[in-house]
Amino acid sequence: ALAAPAMAQTSVTVSGLVDAFAGSMRYAGDAGRTAGVNSGGLTTSWFGFKGTEDLGGGLKANFQLTSFFQADNGVQGRFPNDTLFSRDANVGLAGNFGEVSLGRGLAPNFLPMILFNPFGDSFNFSPLVLQHQVPLLNPNFSTRFASSVAGDTGWSNQIKYTTPSFGGLTANLHYQFGEAAGNNGKNNVGANVLYFNGPLSLTAFYHKVKVNNPLDTPTLQAAAGYAEQKAWFIGGGYDFGVAKLYATYDKTTHDVALEDKTASLGLSVPFGAGKILAGYAQTKRSAGAAPEVKRQTTTVGYDYALSKRTDVYAMLMNDKLTGFDAGNSFGLGIRHGF
Amino acid sequence: ALAAPAMAQTSVTVSGLVDAFAGSMRYAGDAGRTAGVNSGGLTTSWFGFKGTEDLGGGLKANFQLTSFFQADNGVQGRFPNDTLFSRDANVGLAGNFGEVSLGRGLAPNFLPMILFNPFGDSFNFSPLVLQHQVPLLNPNFSTRFASSVAGDTGWSNQIKYTTPSFGGLTANLHYQFGEAAGNNGKNNVGANVLYFNGPLSLTAFYHKVKVNNPLDTPTLQAAAGYAEQKAWFIGGGYDFGVAKLYATYDKTTHDVALEDKTASLGLSVPFGAGKILAGYAQTKRSAGAAPEVKRQTTTVGYDYALSKRTDVYAMLMNDKLTGFDAGNSFGLGIRHGF
Amino acid sequence: ALAAPAMAQTSVTVSGLVDAFAGSMRYAGDAGRTAGVNSGGLTTSWFGFKGTEDLGGGLKANFQLTSFFQADNGVQGRFPNDTLFSRDANVGLAGNFGEVSLGRGLAPNFLPMILFNPFGDSFNFSPLVLQHQVPLLNPNFSTRFASSVAGDTGWSNQIKYTTPSFGGLTANLHYQFGEAAGNNGKNNVGANVLYFNGPLSLTAFYHKVKVNNPLDTPTLQAAAGYAEQKAWFIGGGYDFGVAKLYATYDKTTHDVALEDKTASLGLSVPFGAGKILAGYAQTKRSAGAAPEVKRQTTTVGYDYALSKRTDVYAMLMNDKLTGFDAGNSFGLGIRHGF
Repeated sequence: ALAAPAMAQTSVTVSGLVDAFAGSMRYAGDAGRTAGVNSGGLTTSWFGFKGTEDLGGGLKANFQLTSFFQADNGVQGRFPNDTLFSRDANVGLAGNFGEVSLGRGLAPNFLPMILFNPFGDSFNFSPLVLQHQVPLLNPNFSTRFASSVAGDTGWSNQIKYTTPSFGGLTANLHYQFGEAAGNNGKNNVGANVLYFNGPLSLTAFYHKVKVNNPLDTPTLQAAAGYAEQKAWFIGGGYDFGVAKLYATYDKTTHDVALEDKTASLGLSVPFGAGKILAGYAQTKRSAGAAPEVKRQTTTVGYDYALSKRTDVYAMLMNDKLTGFDAGNSFGLGIRHGF
Repeated sequence: ALAAPAMAQTSVTVSGLVDAFAGSMRYAGDAGRTAGVNSGGLTTSWFGFKGTEDLGGGLKANFQLTSFFQADNGVQGRFPNDTLFSRDANVGLAGNFGEVSLGRGLAPNFLPMILFNPFGDSFNFSPLVLQHQVPLLNPNFSTRFASSVAGDTGWSNQIKYTTPSFGGLTANLHYQFGEAAGNNGKNNVGANVLYFNGPLSLTAFYHKVKVNNPLDTPTLQAAAGYAEQKAWFIGGGYDFGVAKLYATYDKTTHDVALEDKTASLGLSVPFGAGKILAGYAQTKRSAGAAPEVKRQTTTVGYDYALSKRTDVYAMLMNDKLTGFDAGNSFGLGIRHGF
Repeated sequence: ALAAPAMAQTSVTVSGLVDAFAGSMRYAGDAGRTAGVNSGGLTTSWFGFKGTEDLGGGLKANFQLTSFFQADNGVQGRFPNDTLFSRDANVGLAGNFGEVSLGRGLAPNFLPMILFNPFGDSFNFSPLVLQHQVPLLNPNFSTRFASSVAGDTGWSNQIKYTTPSFGGLTANLHYQFGEAAGNNGKNNVGANVLYFNGPLSLTAFYHKVKVNNPLDTPTLQAAAGYAEQKAWFIGGGYDFGVAKLYATYDKTTHDVALEDKTASLGLSVPFGAGKILAGYAQTKRSAGAAPEVKRQTTTVGYDYALSKRTDVYAMLMNDKLTGFDAGNSFGLGIRHGF
């Protein structure tokens, strides 16, 4: 057994997070309620290996090899056939110029989404994350309500450039090769900006996505009826001390008659050793002459810190979708970082 | 490369065990002998990550993420399509009240079985473990002799409660959600007790199993012709110094006409720097009007300790089953914990 | 997070290597060019766990659990359905007598190949490695140009013996069980020798291969039309200081009318903080009355060391095959060990 304190001169760090909750879930349109133990009530569970080497002259080499997993049953990844290092698998160089990395890493849509809603990267309870990223009636991708943002939260085969911070402003430029022989026009491109200055935070992203992830199987076309998506997103947050407010707005358009507009509002209120969290998101979907479809998701919860790296939480969610029964969900969980 | 001694202030421990042996195996009914290098002659090989955080006031957060693997060919898990963290994937809180954990962890049948036979958790040579857990003619589950205890040695989607120790007596309560939408009646429940006091040790477990593991695929019905199993088990051990004796008895019944009764005896005799091990188990299976089937397995071996965490062993086994040719197996292996 | 310096008293080491490059690849016969980010430009990316325990009296217990992965997309292994610990999964004892290990480990063909060409174990740019190990038109194994050396670079279910060093000379003896029930004649056997003395290095290997790896699926027969391959290989290197030269020659024969002869030359020239690398390999394949087929691969590159464990590289390759269009490839990458 290996066990050691954080120290200098390191070449690799083993870290991760285990998040599991007991609850009963019913998303909009679900035929029945499903009670169970699930993974990732507040953060998708992960583990992995990271390291930084100081090369001198301000230059550093960095790598990340991290895996999502399901803390309730030990399954690799987030869904069937997800890859081993589904979270990160990249290596790069950082210096005064910023950082360049090669491999699998964050998509441009990810940080703006998770940093500008009070539930972070909860793929079970964050209204914004659910509408952006989690298709209803999974795994039958688009049979009820496909997620609005294409291309996954991580991109494979990617060159990513992160700028230095300019007074709190950083930008990330993303390019993913489609790796289709003789067809270099198939690729993903995107960028985001993040600005943090005292109580104020602002963000935006744009992407043009033609390639699915983590592997391009099934292709976007087969899965959702389109071959290209363009998306733009803006978000802001302000911390008043007694409460932090969040607001976002985004729009996706496609090479077919399909357009989503998503707006979200969030609130985080310090209370005792924890925070009361509340959030709402709605997506309006129009597809040609078909009637507009609206999804509305509302979550309230309380997240109580047992330590800097362990918290327990309780969440309540209501999920509505035009033409389907609404569903209520709740969960009681524990999240532990290591 | 990271390498470090065991120390305090830790947040994660990397540990595991590699067990491989060269041998020639022929279980009852096998058409031929198979020579090879195999994994887990005495203990199923595993590796993983564990950690404990002291939260103050006697409260601790614990997590375990551990994987079975095959040390002979590097394959993940114990069998095809086993999961990544097939051994453990859970997080919980421990204190004066005992411990509550969420996720994948031990089934109630596991500790009573492995702590009350001299071969521990040998899925290759322990007569009791083979008859409880390893179907003959794997992977065609029940074509010759299905294992007698259902639901795997680990349960997913589980809430587990462990009591504090009351003078050497601890109990574990297990509940596994079946996570079938709109059908909360499908679940696994079980409990065990373990008592250790000087030379004497006693145990018992009970379970009612409707859900297969690690994932409910295939379902119990499809695999073995029943939808529910009830099992009870008792066991005892006594260490006379010159030898430790073990005895167990268990019975399983089902929602169809199928009943197994298994009895086992074991012996462990210190000899030199090692131990002579001997064990016998027999299972009588009755299924309605069909003639009773009896399986009898006998193993003798020697386990020699090279250090506290490395040993070498030699095993000889005879396996009989009503209506089939008996088989003899032997193995010579090394087990190394880290 | 765990992070620690290399120290004594250890029981497990976490280590690995991440190698990713951006480039555009076109092997002989490819219909088009494929631009992308790929893994393992110079070394196949891997991570894993290793340990050594001093048992006293010169005896040591060793284990290795290491995994290949693809640093561009996070996929496990080197190709679809590769295993978790595809690189190594073994345990053994070492002492004055040498070392014996059980499990999955190096095949006899591996070290002679990678230590006697200037590109090491580059499965993307080393002419010798490509012709030995990487079939063209992967994954349709033999449709254009099957690799010449059978049985993978690692063998599962193996007993391996390594001699002590006799004045710079060591030998490895390899035996892999085929684990076919009732058919112990199906197995792999092989051996190699390695000699290092000042500027001179020499090597040879021989193998007779009947079992595919990492698992015997598909069998050799189904994949390439033969059931047995015999191979012998010789190689040498000499370091003149201003340049190191490499040369190899090998021949494979089969139980059908198929014979490959491969020759390679290599050059490594120190230049600045790096090395200029150049290599050429050609394989002549004769299959009965069919016209001889010749594959010729040439690579030049520059590998620049940023530190002892991080380098950046640029590679250019030309690949020709009788009857097909030649292809040119290039890559620019970074390799980082940890």
